[in-house]
Amino acid sequence: MKPTQILFTDVSSQTWIEKVLLNSESHPEFSKQSEWSVDKRPLHGGPSEGVDLIEVNNGRLKLNIIPTRGMGVWNGMFDELPLGWSSPVKAPVNPALVNLSERGGLGWLSGFNELICRCGLISMGPPGTDAGGNPLESELTLHGRIANTPAHYVSVELDPADGGWIRITGRMTEGMLFGSQLQLESTLETQLGSESFTIKDRVINVGASEAESELLYHINVGAPFLEAGAQFAIPFEEMAPRDPRAAEGVTAYQTYLGPTPGYAEQAYYFKPVADEQGLTPALLSGREGEIGFLVEFVQAKLPCFTLWKNTQPEAAGYVTGLEPGINYPNFRATEREQGRLKVLQPGESYETEFKISILNNSDSVDAIRQKITKLSQQSPSVVHESPHPRFS
Amino acid sequence: MKPTQILFTDVSSQTWIEKVLLNSESHPEFSKQSEWSVDKRPLHGGPSEGVDLIEVNNGRLKLNIIPTRGMGVWNGMFDELPLGWSSPVKAPVNPALVNLSERGGLGWLSGFNELICRCGLISMGPPGTDAGGNPLESELTLHGRIANTPAHYVSVELDPADGGWIRITGRMTEGMLFGSQLQLESTLETQLGSESFTIKDRVINVGASEAESELLYHINVGAPFLEAGAQFAIPFEEMAPRDPRAAEGVTAYQTYLGPTPGYAEQAYYFKPVADEQGLTPALLSGREGEIGFLVEFVQAKLPCFTLWKNTQPEAAGYVTGLEPGINYPNFRATEREQGRLKVLQPGESYETEFKISILNNSDSVDAIRQKITKLSQQSPSVVHESPHPRFS
Amino acid sequence: MKPTQILFTDVSSQTWIEKVLLNSESHPEFSKQSEWSVDKRPLHGGPSEGVDLIEVNNGRLKLNIIPTRGMGVWNGMFDELPLGWSSPVKAPVNPALVNLSERGGLGWLSGFNELICRCGLISMGPPGTDAGGNPLESELTLHGRIANTPAHYVSVELDPADGGWIRITGRMTEGMLFGSQLQLESTLETQLGSESFTIKDRVINVGASEAESELLYHINVGAPFLEAGAQFAIPFEEMAPRDPRAAEGVTAYQTYLGPTPGYAEQAYYFKPVADEQGLTPALLSGREGEIGFLVEFVQAKLPCFTLWKNTQPEAAGYVTGLEPGINYPNFRATEREQGRLKVLQPGESYETEFKISILNNSDSVDAIRQKITKLSQQSPSVVHESPHPRFS
Repeated sequence: MKPTQILFTDVSSQTWIEKVLLNSESHPEFSKQSEWSVDKRPLHGGPSEGVDLIEVNNGRLKLNIIPTRGMGVWNGMFDELPLGWSSPVKAPVNPALVNLSERGGLGWLSGFNELICRCGLISMGPPGTDAGGNPLESELTLHGRIANTPAHYVSVELDPADGGWIRITGRMTEGMLFGSQLQLESTLETQLGSESFTIKDRVINVGASEAESELLYHINVGAPFLEAGAQFAIPFEEMAPRDPRAAEGVTAYQTYLGPTPGYAEQAYYFKPVADEQGLTPALLSGREGEIGFLVEFVQAKLPCFTLWKNTQPEAAGYVTGLEPGINYPNFRATEREQGRLKVLQPGESYETEFKISILNNSDSVDAIRQKITKLSQQSPSVVHESPHPRFS
Repeated sequence: MKPTQILFTDVSSQTWIEKVLLNSESHPEFSKQSEWSVDKRPLHGGPSEGVDLIEVNNGRLKLNIIPTRGMGVWNGMFDELPLGWSSPVKAPVNPALVNLSERGGLGWLSGFNELICRCGLISMGPPGTDAGGNPLESELTLHGRIANTPAHYVSVELDPADGGWIRITGRMTEGMLFGSQLQLESTLETQLGSESFTIKDRVINVGASEAESELLYHINVGAPFLEAGAQFAIPFEEMAPRDPRAAEGVTAYQTYLGPTPGYAEQAYYFKPVADEQGLTPALLSGREGEIGFLVEFVQAKLPCFTLWKNTQPEAAGYVTGLEPGINYPNFRATEREQGRLKVLQPGESYETEFKISILNNSDSVDAIRQKITKLSQQSPSVVHESPHPRFS
Repeated sequence: MKPTQILFTDVSSQTWIEKVLLNSESHPEFSKQSEWSVDKRPLHGGPSEGVDLIEVNNGRLKLNIIPTRGMGVWNGMFDELPLGWSSPVKAPVNPALVNLSERGGLGWLSGFNELICRCGLISMGPPGTDAGGNPLESELTLHGRIANTPAHYVSVELDPADGGWIRITGRMTEGMLFGSQLQLESTLETQLGSESFTIKDRVINVGASEAESELLYHINVGAPFLEAGAQFAIPFEEMAPRDPRAAEGVTAYQTYLGPTPGYAEQAYYFKPVADEQGLTPALLSGREGEIGFLVEFVQAKLPCFTLWKNTQPEAAGYVTGLEPGINYPNFRATEREQGRLKVLQPGESYETEFKISILNNSDSVDAIRQKITKLSQQSPSVVHESPHPRFS
């Protein structure tokens, strides 16, 4: 049987569905075995007015995708396990209310609350003036524009192959006259009944000139995965703390504090290694080892990994970030010097891919831990005790 | 009989009513004696697109509350008396169109047209760089963010007690990761058939760190209350002009000019005194003393009062501001030095309260005038002829 | 028979029609001979969410007017000829998403994709700090605010006179407390079945103080009118290149390159001359002379004309601008020095008028070319080879 395509939004053809529920009643041919659904609806009120939401439910795993915020994944639920974190920003914020330039270029934080938030496409990292790229893009704001760029195209595919796959595709464009022109096509897919989902992105230079690109996935996890004594693990060749503050905690990078008043964020930059399939596993597991949040990314496509530790009190945002990227979240000029920017010729593109799985028992957590341990034993696992010029 | 609660907006539960009319038909049990109504509807077109309006009518007094603009009160009507002023900005402006940072931090003015507009919560007063607070909040813009923050929660209470009370409650939050987290819960209440309404606010530090707060009520009145020869009166201990321009008019602070081309604004800072109930009356009355706009505020909660005189021509905005606050609208660094900022520990809150009454006959105007005169006679009523370092 | 008036939007009376189709079915009395229509509908999704569109069809000519973007004309179609250009910004952008201040004041470009886009009203031209005007308006951003100001009033007139006229009127206001107060009333009219349309604008100082104004019509045309070998012609007294870059191409100003990688924009400033009716024709015609895009403007009302050449590759925006204005798009301080700003007293106004016609055969193109040649022979036609201080 062929996949069914449903177009939710296409600005170019003035197509738009405000509200729709796809499920086994509307699409019985897709699957009758699972309580699956795709529920698109608008949010209203407060800073969420005008924000679109797509709730994908594969029968066990629920994800809230926000087309209005660059196809970010606001939060989710696997069985009874909440996925995401408790940001001081409680609901999805309409990008029309976010002034990226304010607060010295840190205005991005006023909309930041997602489980998965992309940083890019033309730039990411801290704000500042970088005269090295397109002159129209020299005033850089924190983490770029893509998380605040509404999708101009959104479609759903219901593919009955292999028990059933739901795929949500969105497209966003960054660009204007005299600027770089980058388009992101993003697909999130999940198999019915599974504990995981995959994101496959493609960034294309749709302009007429060479363009630089940066991209990082700010994957943010709080309780219950994050807790005092939670563990982080990744196999790597080399790691360095981002700055002196991170260096303070370099020997304890694998463990987490509980919510800690006055905690200042720490970030660690990894050069990951992959298994034979080319995948790097990065695991956050609970203190007792009975639950785990696993990110597996295609290392050749996402060669840089950042660990962000921000174990502030719950009310301030208790969270850690597992962040694969095509580069590190340094200021763009630094990344250019290090040769880590993607430079795309007109028509050229690059792809990324990663999978997130929720582990809800100690066997599956142990299996991944052992795999990481084994890969680590085969890796140099060099830990720099202080910031290293090749990294930051 | 118990009060009836109607939830209009709650972003956290994805509750939202776009359009609803509450009146004696929909709620006959509340009151049949009054032509009361609560009419919620969206505004459309121009800069008002996407703005929510709640028109409250207690049978005599009508008020237009704007949840999208921080529960500000756009304007109103008491019998045939219009409440408010004629700003060059004619209709409620969607905060998405207001860039607070532009025009050297004066972008707030592009949405300013309310009868009651809050200034705060993290800061108010003139724009500038104040490194003394949270680093994310050092780039201060005029009068802060609260007037451009949409309410994420709005509810109505119809309380049959004492002939019937209508209460409208809204909640707004200022905050983000690494920033201060302040929540305002605001309730406006009015008794059926009465000539007055009361606003009761509570500001809570919902974050995990100590946070500073400023708050002022920019209560703005134009014709017919304001006219050539209109009078202002308040009982006070001490008063000082804000600046040399205000000092020019210090002896005439109690009277108003008519619309005056080229008039430059004047502001006076009062340390008010209260009656035995703890209330300070501040009265704007017409030349003939037949109408009056009365603000009575709980002096212990709102210890600072600012009088703003801006008798420009009608087309430019002929208006005066009666402005109780927890502090004065100086630059935040000045207010910090003077110890007038509220410093809230996590979970801590403060409350404010004031009542506005429309006086439509000379007896009621006279009664308040006499009361103010009496309170004034018991007060030092010190008038500084020039700006005083304790005030500005 | 009298004209029929249909009110689409009036914020002051809270009138708004979300979606409506006027045609020979709804208004048979207007005309049965033409497939005319006026179709108002909202756009949805991506950066167009919340943008209103009015598609006017006179039976042959279709125009997409965007009330949300200052009554700009996004694009159009005459028979099979597309009118407009292919901007990197593909769809109309909600002004709520446009931050004019960002990118060093060039944020305007992030919404720029129209066939006709006004620049003004308080300022236009490049960004910068101009202390010479109202202090609230000293931080100038590229091309001012009017293209990103939603219309607060929109109406349609169906006038059966002379075979039938459709008129669309919009009103926008720029202004705020302490700022200048300018209102634009714009009417676009087209006769049923005709190949042309006329725009008549009126800018009024609705404030109480003297106000400066600038205004230019950024009329932007791409393929098929623009192509390698396309021709531009205008009768003029004097012309000067804007800058050294434009001076490089001054002898070739009348011809166009095809899409050219690395092309940097060129602008030429003309002092046009008019025919006996006071109209100046400005013509862009295709290489073969079989199609033409003609702008005829009332020279006394629009005494300045700018030619913008931007023959970048299609993907970057292959386009030329035929731009009549009350002044040239220099920095406002320069225009003030040159005495080209309109200075309006309270209540004072000025008007502009121009007509656009699509020529779809060599006879009509030839006729206009000959007319321009004849007018040119009667004119000095002075070409300055380098920038001239009277112009830029």
